[in-house]
Amino acid sequence: MTKIRAAIVGYGNLGKSVEKLIAQQPDMELVGIFSRRETLDTETPVFNVADAEKHTEDIDLLFLCMGSATDIPEQAPGFAAFACTVDTYDNHRDVPRHRRVMDEAARAAGNVSVVSTGWDPGMFSINRVYGAAMLAANHQQHTFWGPGLSQGHSDALRRISGVQKAVQYTLPSEEALEKARRGEAAGLTGKQTHQRHCYVVAPESEHERIEDEIRTMADYFVGYEVEVNFIDEATFDAEHNGMPHGGHVITTGDTGGFNHTVEYILKLERNPDFTASSQIAFGRAAYRLKEQGQTGAFTVLEVAPYLLSPEPLEDLVSRDV
Amino acid sequence: MTKIRAAIVGYGNLGKSVEKLIAQQPDMELVGIFSRRETLDTETPVFNVADAEKHTEDIDLLFLCMGSATDIPEQAPGFAAFACTVDTYDNHRDVPRHRRVMDEAARAAGNVSVVSTGWDPGMFSINRVYGAAMLAANHQQHTFWGPGLSQGHSDALRRISGVQKAVQYTLPSEEALEKARRGEAAGLTGKQTHQRHCYVVAPESEHERIEDEIRTMADYFVGYEVEVNFIDEATFDAEHNGMPHGGHVITTGDTGGFNHTVEYILKLERNPDFTASSQIAFGRAAYRLKEQGQTGAFTVLEVAPYLLSPEPLEDLVSRDV
Repeated sequence: MTKIRAAIVGYGNLGKSVEKLIAQQPDMELVGIFSRRETLDTETPVFNVADAEKHTEDIDLLFLCMGSATDIPEQAPGFAAFACTVDTYDNHRDVPRHRRVMDEAARAAGNVSVVSTGWDPGMFSINRVYGAAMLAANHQQHTFWGPGLSQGHSDALRRISGVQKAVQYTLPSEEALEKARRGEAAGLTGKQTHQRHCYVVAPESEHERIEDEIRTMADYFVGYEVEVNFIDEATFDAEHNGMPHGGHVITTGDTGGFNHTVEYILKLERNPDFTASSQIAFGRAAYRLKEQGQTGAFTVLEVAPYLLSPEPLEDLVSRDV
Repeated sequence: MTKIRAAIVGYGNLGKSVEKLIAQQPDMELVGIFSRRETLDTETPVFNVADAEKHTEDIDLLFLCMGSATDIPEQAPGFAAFACTVDTYDNHRDVPRHRRVMDEAARAAGNVSVVSTGWDPGMFSINRVYGAAMLAANHQQHTFWGPGLSQGHSDALRRISGVQKAVQYTLPSEEALEKARRGEAAGLTGKQTHQRHCYVVAPESEHERIEDEIRTMADYFVGYEVEVNFIDEATFDAEHNGMPHGGHVITTGDTGGFNHTVEYILKLERNPDFTASSQIAFGRAAYRLKEQGQTGAFTVLEVAPYLLSPEPLEDLVSRDV
């Protein structure tokens, strides 16, 4: 079997996860990592990102592991000119624009770009569409996030004076989950469906003021059910160094007097690893779509499930259907 | 908008659910029902199934709601010559053969046939493939069925002498579900992961013998955790006249020291209604695939998610991705 020759652009948490997980794929090999830095702490060959064009003959698929804030909007279309691409662009509102510019770039070069993979956007997007399509006429749908580490809220805690270390976990409210499963969560807002749990290391004399600053922080904590836990540094280092995440997509519908509930749940011990797992599967799909003669950009909604698997369609039909 | 002109073949529980739910679709209209019987208890026009050929000009899509035992294998390819078709053929082992003959028939006529829709096969098949593709290198996967009414096991109970009325529900074992979520259910068999709960109406003098016959019935009950409840007829009629079902597809995987769990859950108050919901969504996809210039047979694994929705792709990308 000819392996898919893949490369990674960007070497943060996501790029490192992709590197680790490509090594587990039966049908992919990692050619190199493109970075702005000259050396990286890895045995994979490192190329200067400015030299991408020189490597187009050797690479089938680029994993774009750059940030969504500015790097993806600015640089992703350029990479679509060199090879098939797959990204995890997570600015939900901007996905239509991103899809459009990637479609133009990929089409012009005869490549395929799959955009906004991962789990949300990604597998959650797919489950929102499947759930609503199954119960098309009359449904309610809710997405819950967590229990999971929120980077933005953890940063907000760390900006409070006196805070030495801090993390914030977002959790779905159990009561709201149960309401959603019964189709009774219509109108509930994110503040009513999620809780925010904070773990903070700070001098004891500052606890009261810090807790007060947390609870009164507009946008981030006001209106939420908030739990503030002060812990010592050793406990923090031992128990709060992971990157767990996950969530639920719950769709309920009524088929004329009968209720149906569809629920998709992710429980992830390491968020970047699962995001990378999804990116790798959709990267495989990008390569295969190009092999089938397709060009342009695809969202996860436009990719048939079998294209994600390293196994032949015939084997999936025999075993899984 | 031009509506999809649909017809139903077969008028059992599934055909009745499809009839009810087509009325809720914004993009479909029901032209008629094909039956061997001359009249049916419905306001929908009834056509003789032998006259299907006469109606080909008026029908875009046929919902094949016949039995999987003999009707689908014998008759489905013939219908693919008249229009796009969608079936719920549920003989898992025979799906590859069914797909092949439907592919030939549909291709010859320039139609599209989506085969083996519903929830298992159907949505569960899709979730088995997605789950395994996300955690490609190193995963365990388990499917659980229920709590749900088992027609075959209920029939077996009713064949026991002295039994007046009976139903059997299959339930996943809670302990096995928890093991599967932790990735510790490898090697567990269906007998270890499911329980069988029986509700039986019978004269009190016969209870002991009937319970003994149930518990010793090979293939059906021996080896399972079995619960036998004798109830009076009024309770039976009030509480056991539904057709609930559902289940779980659980995939766990390890990305190098980190565990991930993907779970898809269905809780269905009326099994034929949800099967019909899935069949309708994949019927829509069959019609659209033909509009895109495709022909032949597709399993649910080969259909991109957006094709199931009555909403335009652009709206789904804006809202759900």
